[in-house]
Amino acid sequence: MSGALRVTVLGAGNWGTTLAHCVARNGHQVRLWSRSAETCDAINNRHEHPRSLPGIALAPSIHAVSSLAEALGAPDLILLAVPSQSLRGLCRELAPLLAPEHLLVHGIKGLESESHARMSQVLREETCLLQLGVLSGPNLAPEIAAGQPAGTVIATRFPRIVVQVRRALASAHLRVFESHDPCGVELCGAIKNVVAIASGMADELQLGANAKAFLLTRGLAELTRLLSAYDGDPGTALGLAGCGDLMATAQSPISRNHRVGAALARGLSLHQAVAEIGMVAEGVLAARSVCALADARGLELPLIATVARVLQGELTVVHALAALLELPTGHDVPSCLRRGD
Amino acid sequence: MSGALRVTVLGAGNWGTTLAHCVARNGHQVRLWSRSAETCDAINNRHEHPRSLPGIALAPSIHAVSSLAEALGAPDLILLAVPSQSLRGLCRELAPLLAPEHLLVHGIKGLESESHARMSQVLREETCLLQLGVLSGPNLAPEIAAGQPAGTVIATRFPRIVVQVRRALASAHLRVFESHDPCGVELCGAIKNVVAIASGMADELQLGANAKAFLLTRGLAELTRLLSAYDGDPGTALGLAGCGDLMATAQSPISRNHRVGAALARGLSLHQAVAEIGMVAEGVLAARSVCALADARGLELPLIATVARVLQGELTVVHALAALLELPTGHDVPSCLRRGD
Repeated sequence: MSGALRVTVLGAGNWGTTLAHCVARNGHQVRLWSRSAETCDAINNRHEHPRSLPGIALAPSIHAVSSLAEALGAPDLILLAVPSQSLRGLCRELAPLLAPEHLLVHGIKGLESESHARMSQVLREETCLLQLGVLSGPNLAPEIAAGQPAGTVIATRFPRIVVQVRRALASAHLRVFESHDPCGVELCGAIKNVVAIASGMADELQLGANAKAFLLTRGLAELTRLLSAYDGDPGTALGLAGCGDLMATAQSPISRNHRVGAALARGLSLHQAVAEIGMVAEGVLAARSVCALADARGLELPLIATVARVLQGELTVVHALAALLELPTGHDVPSCLRRGD
Repeated sequence: MSGALRVTVLGAGNWGTTLAHCVARNGHQVRLWSRSAETCDAINNRHEHPRSLPGIALAPSIHAVSSLAEALGAPDLILLAVPSQSLRGLCRELAPLLAPEHLLVHGIKGLESESHARMSQVLREETCLLQLGVLSGPNLAPEIAAGQPAGTVIATRFPRIVVQVRRALASAHLRVFESHDPCGVELCGAIKNVVAIASGMADELQLGANAKAFLLTRGLAELTRLLSAYDGDPGTALGLAGCGDLMATAQSPISRNHRVGAALARGLSLHQAVAEIGMVAEGVLAARSVCALADARGLELPLIATVARVLQGELTVVHALAALLELPTGHDVPSCLRRGD
């Protein structure tokens, strides 16, 4: 168990850079890959990443490289955090460099737009990797980079991955829990961003704490039913990746998804909202994919479907929220989580 | 299904008065009982309750009475919302006026301090009532009284109670869901106030959105295990009375429990905190009772136990939060909600 790990982190956005920072602070060797030579230079020479993590002094031992081959070497663990829509392209570049014995954990919360595939499905389709895990939870990167406390969850079927992720990342500030439901955790990460958009809408219209909690709870119920339909464990919805992440995302004004919802509620078009925020929020893309997954299993997820219609310009926010509040009332908790009555 | 109901509401605090207001707006006959002649006068003559619901114009048809016998008459439904610690005394006054065919629904979130009994246990011990229900959920009374949207849950084993509660209360603004787990819903209502105290502490110390979501998720896990140990349905934790109510209570600065936690984190003693808030928060009393219930089943609930120790002056807030963040990490979701791995 002792000795420094060699950890490769792919992607130097705010989450990848934060993961590299945590691993380096734990005394391990870190190679952080970024396509941008400018970013590598800032990290290697000034130990900062002004665009992604302004004001954070990064661990000086992080070694940033712009060559994938150099980044990989012979790592004990690979952490991957790139935008969901760029994963497949990156996988194609990575494939020749990977071996079946590599351990890879991704921290991407989204689905591929074209295929509606989960990230682990893309990884399996495009590489020879077998031992995969997903890292998720209420993990706003700037807080973790600043050393504020958080809990995260590593979901995998491979106990060795749990061990290595704990060695690499766990600290007094970052508590690492485990889950054996990677599929469920990936779906949580996709759907919570869509629910956060609804939450941003409700906040902007000042519907109140009751209405917001109501919408979030309905969102969790829809998440639970989606997990159940896709062989995830419905109980995963109650953990850090489900309820936990939803609570952090839906409350935080720094969440891009929440900000998209608020901007739409102010009357902006999706195009204007995205322009204002300066980047695409994952939930905007995920909404359509989650609807497609639900359709494929004959599931009705009214909250998700309503957010998707607002994003497509088919419904105003005011009408959307009114429709959600008028939905038929039935059981409080979905049947997949209820004991037989 | 048509025709006005005769509904008796016992207790004219902010929740009882709000329930009376909702029932009256739905066109039913409401008698609202308050011990205070002054309160009855304000409600009957000025249609207001300045202390409990300042600024709200109450439905003029609410008939407030200070006599229990007059309040009861022959009601189709009794709604009860008094402080948890005064329920047993009220029951002893009520008992001679009640009959087994009465339908009674309480909306009290707490446990009896001496006995650690749930409210329905007190009602069964002290009256001849058989058909009971509990109303719970993210229901901050001032928002509902002001007509802002909310969802609530009626938990009962009696379908007739679900029907009557929906007739009495459901509207475009107040959506009524059902649950068949009254025991679980009552336990949710007690424990969420304790977790909200922890949330107030974390907010005051500015631990961040990640840490707060982490604590709330740990609190939900402890709730789930308590439900399971007491024959509640663990899935109830994911519904409006569990996760939903926790989200509303833990976020809202108008929650007394949240304010107690914040005051303790500023260094006030419990005595000073209660003095500042002007009344006892239910979570202060519930913490000890929930610990006793856990002990009786050999359960460890570290978050609840830690809050209880802070309330008893045995631990500072800073040490308490540090201890919670240092707890051993294991599975993300309690075993009672996981499928077999």
